[in-house]
Amino acid sequence: MNTSNESPRPVLIGGEWVVASSAKSFRATNPSTGEPIPSLFPVSDWSDCNKALASAASAFRESRNLPGSRIADFLDDYAKRIEGEKDALVALAHEESALPKSPRLADVELPRTINQLRLAAEAARNESWRTATIDRKANIRSCYRALGPIAVFGPNNFPFAFNSIAGGDFAAAIAAGNPVIAKANSSHPGTTEHFGKLAAAALRATGMPEGLVQLIYRTSHEDGERLVADPRLAAVGYTGARTAGLQLKAVADRVGKPFYAELSSVNPVVFLPGALRERGVKLAEEFVGSGLMGAGQFCTNPGLLLFIRSDETEQFVQTVVDKYTSTAAGTLLSPNVESSLVKSIQVLTNAGAQLLTGGTKINGPRCAVANTVLRVTGTQMLTDPHTFQTEAFGNAVLIAVCDSHQQIVSIIEALEGNLTGTIYSDTQGHDDHDYIKIADALEQRVGRVLNDKMPTGVAVSPAMNHGGPYPATSHPGFTAVGIPASLLRFAKLTCYDAVRESRLPEILRNENPTGFTWRSIDGKWTTGTIESA
Amino acid sequence: MNTSNESPRPVLIGGEWVVASSAKSFRATNPSTGEPIPSLFPVSDWSDCNKALASAASAFRESRNLPGSRIADFLDDYAKRIEGEKDALVALAHEESALPKSPRLADVELPRTINQLRLAAEAARNESWRTATIDRKANIRSCYRALGPIAVFGPNNFPFAFNSIAGGDFAAAIAAGNPVIAKANSSHPGTTEHFGKLAAAALRATGMPEGLVQLIYRTSHEDGERLVADPRLAAVGYTGARTAGLQLKAVADRVGKPFYAELSSVNPVVFLPGALRERGVKLAEEFVGSGLMGAGQFCTNPGLLLFIRSDETEQFVQTVVDKYTSTAAGTLLSPNVESSLVKSIQVLTNAGAQLLTGGTKINGPRCAVANTVLRVTGTQMLTDPHTFQTEAFGNAVLIAVCDSHQQIVSIIEALEGNLTGTIYSDTQGHDDHDYIKIADALEQRVGRVLNDKMPTGVAVSPAMNHGGPYPATSHPGFTAVGIPASLLRFAKLTCYDAVRESRLPEILRNENPTGFTWRSIDGKWTTGTIESA
Repeated sequence: MNTSNESPRPVLIGGEWVVASSAKSFRATNPSTGEPIPSLFPVSDWSDCNKALASAASAFRESRNLPGSRIADFLDDYAKRIEGEKDALVALAHEESALPKSPRLADVELPRTINQLRLAAEAARNESWRTATIDRKANIRSCYRALGPIAVFGPNNFPFAFNSIAGGDFAAAIAAGNPVIAKANSSHPGTTEHFGKLAAAALRATGMPEGLVQLIYRTSHEDGERLVADPRLAAVGYTGARTAGLQLKAVADRVGKPFYAELSSVNPVVFLPGALRERGVKLAEEFVGSGLMGAGQFCTNPGLLLFIRSDETEQFVQTVVDKYTSTAAGTLLSPNVESSLVKSIQVLTNAGAQLLTGGTKINGPRCAVANTVLRVTGTQMLTDPHTFQTEAFGNAVLIAVCDSHQQIVSIIEALEGNLTGTIYSDTQGHDDHDYIKIADALEQRVGRVLNDKMPTGVAVSPAMNHGGPYPATSHPGFTAVGIPASLLRFAKLTCYDAVRESRLPEILRNENPTGFTWRSIDGKWTTGTIESA
Repeated sequence: MNTSNESPRPVLIGGEWVVASSAKSFRATNPSTGEPIPSLFPVSDWSDCNKALASAASAFRESRNLPGSRIADFLDDYAKRIEGEKDALVALAHEESALPKSPRLADVELPRTINQLRLAAEAARNESWRTATIDRKANIRSCYRALGPIAVFGPNNFPFAFNSIAGGDFAAAIAAGNPVIAKANSSHPGTTEHFGKLAAAALRATGMPEGLVQLIYRTSHEDGERLVADPRLAAVGYTGARTAGLQLKAVADRVGKPFYAELSSVNPVVFLPGALRERGVKLAEEFVGSGLMGAGQFCTNPGLLLFIRSDETEQFVQTVVDKYTSTAAGTLLSPNVESSLVKSIQVLTNAGAQLLTGGTKINGPRCAVANTVLRVTGTQMLTDPHTFQTEAFGNAVLIAVCDSHQQIVSIIEALEGNLTGTIYSDTQGHDDHDYIKIADALEQRVGRVLNDKMPTGVAVSPAMNHGGPYPATSHPGFTAVGIPASLLRFAKLTCYDAVRESRLPEILRNENPTGFTWRSIDGKWTTGTIESA
């Protein structure tokens, strides 16, 4: 007879926790100790994936026609249950990720996650995200509708806010009326399972179709690709490592399926000379706070700093080196993150970057690398821009000291797509000429342009774009954060041409079904009702 | 010395007609006579493609920041020049496509093309398409901006309305501020060249960047793929054959580039029993008019009719067979279309479809196939739905006679993505039960649902969706027809986070720059100005 330690945890299919089909299993690692965490999780084989797909496909028949208010009730109920389990979730996530309990997990990330679910509920209830468009004269009406079952692959660095069963992609996919197959990140399966229990309870409490939410764990490459290719799956939301993401994207591309990936970003930050003269030391401190936050494990971590050569630049660099050297290195999320960071630093030094501090693993079982600062000249960077924009995910930064603002422009033009690009400039207008030239190049390469502010904060605002040109993401027109815009990724535009009014989705009928949904009628946005055409 | 007949026509690069680099050339065929048309057109080799890319990339530096009103001036000027050259364009297009001069080319397609350009001008001037979104509290603002140089591959079946240098994709890409590299369809290069002359004149007259419009001709597969992969190209609009389209899409996918393809569609039409009882003969006539219009060479041609077995169904089928047999077959667009149609009909008959009339080439030099009606049972169709939904592009239709409405639902569930899906039902409610079941399946498979109306008309309406799930198109969230929505394909979402107001694009500043642009401010749509945050 198996002891509880030897039997892997079940998977969530159609509202029920069922025994995983495969005998294979894994344990997550506690990155603070390097030791395995006792709970045993299953490797989900094709049989589990297949059941999850069947369950999601069945739920979609119902979920696509559910009123937004019903879906909102589920999201709100789920958010409340998460709020009630805060301590347990924080403890699990801390053990699995080594992220600080406070403020990070308890006071920032969990409230953000709850807020995202509530905003998604509000968007579902409001229905304005559907962009109902009515042409009365032609009697043609269109809106966005649910797309179908969505697989969500969450990243390692946000056990809550981007969790595959509770984070932004999950909230967006559900709010748009789609069932989700959540694939737990293998670095925090316990946290994810706990969310799964709360989600299952919320499904029951609000009478949702049972297959609205599935949870599976690690899959083989082969089964992961088969899941993505399966015709029952409509689209994928993926946040994580670039190589694995591109492999899955290639599968989705071959079958013509939307694959929304957020892959990598070095998030260039330009410090113009006037800003350094005006407040250089303060800016260096501001950067250090952002660069080392969460051991630098943010998709929007400022990983590439660009300067024009000057005394103030040298002073900035020295301040950063001092602080990076004297500050204790944070614990990294996993042994994988640690080895990958060391490898990326080596790629940069092998290409000729000068190591100013750090660069090696910190001795001991804890996952940690010394805070690392690397330096190149702008000229060096332009000789091999591909290598020098290698993402060093974690507590490392590359500083490029350039000859001129033109050289900064050339470097930016040689960058791949990024999530963010930041420019610090002075308050008196001395930097304005450089700003214009640099910003014009920068905004073509990034999804979000910032002034005088570190990019690590990603507000959940309707105006946010957490997106950007490839390979930051896989489509330059969509955002993964910011509600309701993030819902549009998981929707299908559907047009009704001369369809009889009683047969239209409620949102396209003459009456405004909620009284507050924004609709574009004959080119004008209104929350009103329309006259019969 | 070469005679004018022996020297191929030039290509349009950066506002100038320049000698094509390659010595290779081709002539289009007059489909009415099967004879080559004298004008010699160049095969565009990599040198031409490379020059076109450099020119477009250079123009983009300027075009992306042009006020919408300037771009609108160009589109309006171009539309007016096209209007003034109506006779010449109609004569060229008729010679190259065999489409009737009137009403088709002169009275329908050219006016539509001019109208599209004017609507695109209006959208550019209005700027509401940019979806300016302002969150005052967070001081985050975002909007859609131009994406970069766009390659447009136009189809053979609309020498005007989908022409790569004058049609819907062209108008949408330009209106959003992007330069275009138009790749002429090889079946109507003369028409396309004439548009190119008018576009070049309009560029000069309105002071546009010279490289806003390029025109190249047939390329080798290798050069076409190299063009799509080139980093200077931002995205592709492709309308045409599926195999060639998917080859190019695979190249774009590998480099993470948006590729908007419209590939194929059989456009199912369901005739419910009550509708047949009520007005069967009238509906048969309505179908014949739509099915044979333009020799059936429409992307929205009704190619698959679905019935429940009955006497009225037999009567409908007989009426269609009689009319298809007694009506003269239209001329097809090219020898390729002819051979491909014959081949598709053979695929269907080889799979077991019964040939009720037509099926073979009409003897003589003219490109033409006898009007063709094929028949299967619903049960047959379900044994091999993949083969039986082979698109027979042209004047052929497949009729599936089913046992029940459930069988129709099963067939629809087995269909790939389509542009349109239509249901005819009676006016007394007898068909309502079947309608609900069938429509629920149908709207998951198509971009546009129609009631009691043939799908061949595609109104240029803001509510139109000329799109649909793969492989009808390559993304279920976008439309190729319908302004301003079609512009969003060629745009990039850009967010400004704490960017100083004077540095924002005008549309995101506090003042509404036009006084009539719709913006979403703190969740409310308005054309007003906002208070300073």
